[in-house]
Amino acid sequence: MQLLKDYILKNGRVVTDGLLKVDGFLNHQIDIGLFQNIGREFYNHFKNDNITKILTIEASGIGIACITAQYFDVPVLFAKKNSVKTQGENVYTADIASFTHGKNYSIRVSKDYLSPSDRILIIDDFLANGEAIQGLVNIAKQAGATVAGAAVVIEKGFQGGGDKLRAEGLNLLSLAIIESMDTSGKITFR
Amino acid sequence: MQLLKDYILKNGRVVTDGLLKVDGFLNHQIDIGLFQNIGREFYNHFKNDNITKILTIEASGIGIACITAQYFDVPVLFAKKNSVKTQGENVYTADIASFTHGKNYSIRVSKDYLSPSDRILIIDDFLANGEAIQGLVNIAKQAGATVAGAAVVIEKGFQGGGDKLRAEGLNLLSLAIIESMDTSGKITFR
Repeated sequence: MQLLKDYILKNGRVVTDGLLKVDGFLNHQIDIGLFQNIGREFYNHFKNDNITKILTIEASGIGIACITAQYFDVPVLFAKKNSVKTQGENVYTADIASFTHGKNYSIRVSKDYLSPSDRILIIDDFLANGEAIQGLVNIAKQAGATVAGAAVVIEKGFQGGGDKLRAEGLNLLSLAIIESMDTSGKITFR
Repeated sequence: MQLLKDYILKNGRVVTDGLLKVDGFLNHQIDIGLFQNIGREFYNHFKNDNITKILTIEASGIGIACITAQYFDVPVLFAKKNSVKTQGENVYTADIASFTHGKNYSIRVSKDYLSPSDRILIIDDFLANGEAIQGLVNIAKQAGATVAGAAVVIEKGFQGGGDKLRAEGLNLLSLAIIESMDTSGKITFR
């Protein structure tokens, strides 16, 4: 998606090896016009897949999931990272090692909101080692739901998570795949 | 907002004293059609206030903030609860005591994305003791920005946070104010 690549080249900054700062438009401040364009791209790719629900993970997946859900006219369900008083124990869980946060954590989804008749589109802002997507696939499968595919905004191709998920047969759409980048500011797309 | 009250009465559940479970449509699974209606209500109330940015807090404020931002055509900025590698130390911070999560935490907003020329609309899903809104007001003021108002979906009126904020002069819009509720299932709106 050329518009997104332009945003990354103009506003992104390689902070350290493997770490791309795009918090001016993607995961801290959010450019809603860009998100609408991204949502339409996701919709065009998956519109014939009979999606019944969008599954994402807090926090930075929620915005893009909600904007995208409007085009599919389906609910969003977001996995929680922290246990909250209202959620109870009736949950599916999966363990995730996060690259960006530098720690491991569990995600939780209430069993009430996934069923075997669901056809799930997984959405996230970033794909690095693929652990978050894998955890969401895992949770959808625990519920007996079908994972129709996954859509991410930026894939860090050099970390290999996307290729691993594709090799496992996941229908994965990444709107920008970064093949390499370095702190001099050079970013190369696949 | 009658549609919202109907949702609360039909799908909400009083779990324990003071704790309302609305995760079927508001803060775990998200009903996007309802969010669009909420966003339009927020817009109608604040459309003449020259809002330049919507400020919210992760995680469950993000969805409603993003849907609402479309009507104002402004960016969303969400305060982070956890330090992430890409954020650095160039941040405004505020401390918050959470009712729902039962613990204290700090929120962080990069200084890059707030300026004295900003007119901020604060958005959140819930207002209980008002600490989260107060923290966001605090951060906006650190940046010298103007807080034009705050809009929340559900206010738990009996916890007093909303009345305290109103007494301090905040232009606060709550689409449903719960005056009382108990575990028998009875919910009374103000």
